[in-house]
Amino acid sequence: MEGFLLKQTVISEFCLTRRVQFYETDAAGIVHFSVFFRYMEEAEHAMWRAAGLNIAHQDAQVGFPRVAAGFEFFKPLRFPDEFEVHLQITRKSTKSLSYSATIVKNGQTAARGTLSVACVSSCPGKPMRGISIPSEIADCFEVATTEGTKA
Amino acid sequence: MEGFLLKQTVISEFCLTRRVQFYETDAAGIVHFSVFFRYMEEAEHAMWRAAGLNIAHQDAQVGFPRVAAGFEFFKPLRFPDEFEVHLQITRKSTKSLSYSATIVKNGQTAARGTLSVACVSSCPGKPMRGISIPSEIADCFEVATTEGTKA
Amino acid sequence: MEGFLLKQTVISEFCLTRRVQFYETDAAGIVHFSVFFRYMEEAEHAMWRAAGLNIAHQDAQVGFPRVAAGFEFFKPLRFPDEFEVHLQITRKSTKSLSYSATIVKNGQTAARGTLSVACVSSCPGKPMRGISIPSEIADCFEVATTEGTKA
Amino acid sequence: MEGFLLKQTVISEFCLTRRVQFYETDAAGIVHFSVFFRYMEEAEHAMWRAAGLNIAHQDAQVGFPRVAAGFEFFKPLRFPDEFEVHLQITRKSTKSLSYSATIVKNGQTAARGTLSVACVSSCPGKPMRGISIPSEIADCFEVATTEGTKA
Repeated sequence: MEGFLLKQTVISEFCLTRRVQFYETDAAGIVHFSVFFRYMEEAEHAMWRAAGLNIAHQDAQVGFPRVAAGFEFFKPLRFPDEFEVHLQITRKSTKSLSYSATIVKNGQTAARGTLSVACVSSCPGKPMRGISIPSEIADCFEVATTEGTKA
Repeated sequence: MEGFLLKQTVISEFCLTRRVQFYETDAAGIVHFSVFFRYMEEAEHAMWRAAGLNIAHQDAQVGFPRVAAGFEFFKPLRFPDEFEVHLQITRKSTKSLSYSATIVKNGQTAARGTLSVACVSSCPGKPMRGISIPSEIADCFEVATTEGTKA
Repeated sequence: MEGFLLKQTVISEFCLTRRVQFYETDAAGIVHFSVFFRYMEEAEHAMWRAAGLNIAHQDAQVGFPRVAAGFEFFKPLRFPDEFEVHLQITRKSTKSLSYSATIVKNGQTAARGTLSVACVSSCPGKPMRGISIPSEIADCFEVATTEGTKA
Repeated sequence: MEGFLLKQTVISEFCLTRRVQFYETDAAGIVHFSVFFRYMEEAEHAMWRAAGLNIAHQDAQVGFPRVAAGFEFFKPLRFPDEFEVHLQITRKSTKSLSYSATIVKNGQTAARGTLSVACVSSCPGKPMRGISIPSEIADCFEVATTEGTKA
């Protein structure tokens, strides 16, 4: 697996480009605030794929439930706006990861969010139990040192 | 378990009363059409509970994936409308069940739908395989003979 | 409208009882974290109805976009759990309202959230503009003084 | 606007490539059946954009509510499957359009759907009224004559 290791990229930030879908809007004519949390998670999962990982593999022994999430909303998104989700890793501990997300439309910040996830052992039907992030996952990520991608 | 059998009710129709939630609307100001399918399923699950059953028990050996679903839309629903979902069993075979659903607001039919579900063996990670509906489930349901509850 | 004023109740907290719907779960077998924000808003809208108000009336001149929202997650919810959303008003200013929400299942806190909404003039096609909450709405609410309903 | 006319493409089919998002799955580990209707609509809106049109413009005088939709489900989709939505126009009348959609994963048909939409005058707060599709929209679409893109 030396070849894999040579190619491996340590990731600390990711940018997802996305278009608002009609079913994501509400009767106020704007994207429903709960959907921004889906955008943030969509960017997280794309970042994991960019690292060669599947955050929710069907046969995985570990899972990554969300332990906290928040957003501040500055400007609405509307159908069919195009926007970016700038995701950065802001904290990495033995058992958890934290991200910040900036939603940008036409160069303007529409919303800013945070997300923290914990690593748990994944046994169907049993209570979740916090465990250390396996090294083959932890080694793929590091905390972002620059704020350059934030709008 | 004779007591259980004595109390058992055979069910062929069910009425769910529900209010439109804001996050179910879209930028056209009405409930998004995909949400009607959730209303129909919500009524199905409530009907199963009324029969003493959980259609998606965590440890169940059987599952009931949807094999077909359709809706005709006549009048829009808006936030915060109250409405009813009139559900009837229209077909019952060894391996599947079919329902019709009528969405009624203020005595007027807003939409009419159909849903067919099949019984499959439920093993995580394996392909679904059609099987006979277990008798303790099949015995709870029968095809509706009247159309009386339809608006 | 004196009669209305006589009957008016000033509200500072509200409890919504709700069941998890199947379409609110994800492949981890639990309610998707984004759905908790919908539960919190559902309780807010029910609280407004209890005060005789519709937070998103079709012809309203004012709207209440969300400016911030967050949740901490402690225990997962699963289909078909029953749970409560305990909502309290935590801040009331001229132009905004803040709430806290506690999601309780079987007497245990599953999640705790916060939500802040601002009052804006509502003109389709124009940018939102912050305005004072109309008195007929502001007079219906006051900050909760007790923490008694929180689990 | 002759230049526009010269460049104009009459469209009768469209293929959208898409990845399953985690929040689209349910506790059975598969994409919830209601989400397939969103995939079909997403492909429809992308087809309209390919024709230079926005199906739900904020200031539009016309709207296109869904009057009927259905799906047959053959194989489940799971996170993070990639799939295609093959959309074809199957009927075009003065006041309505009908589509068929085939959801294809790894060359295999996962589901087949249909969608019919009507053209209505769009006045907020007034009942919808069926009208003829404006020619600048109708001229962009024609019924598909081949079945070649269907899996």
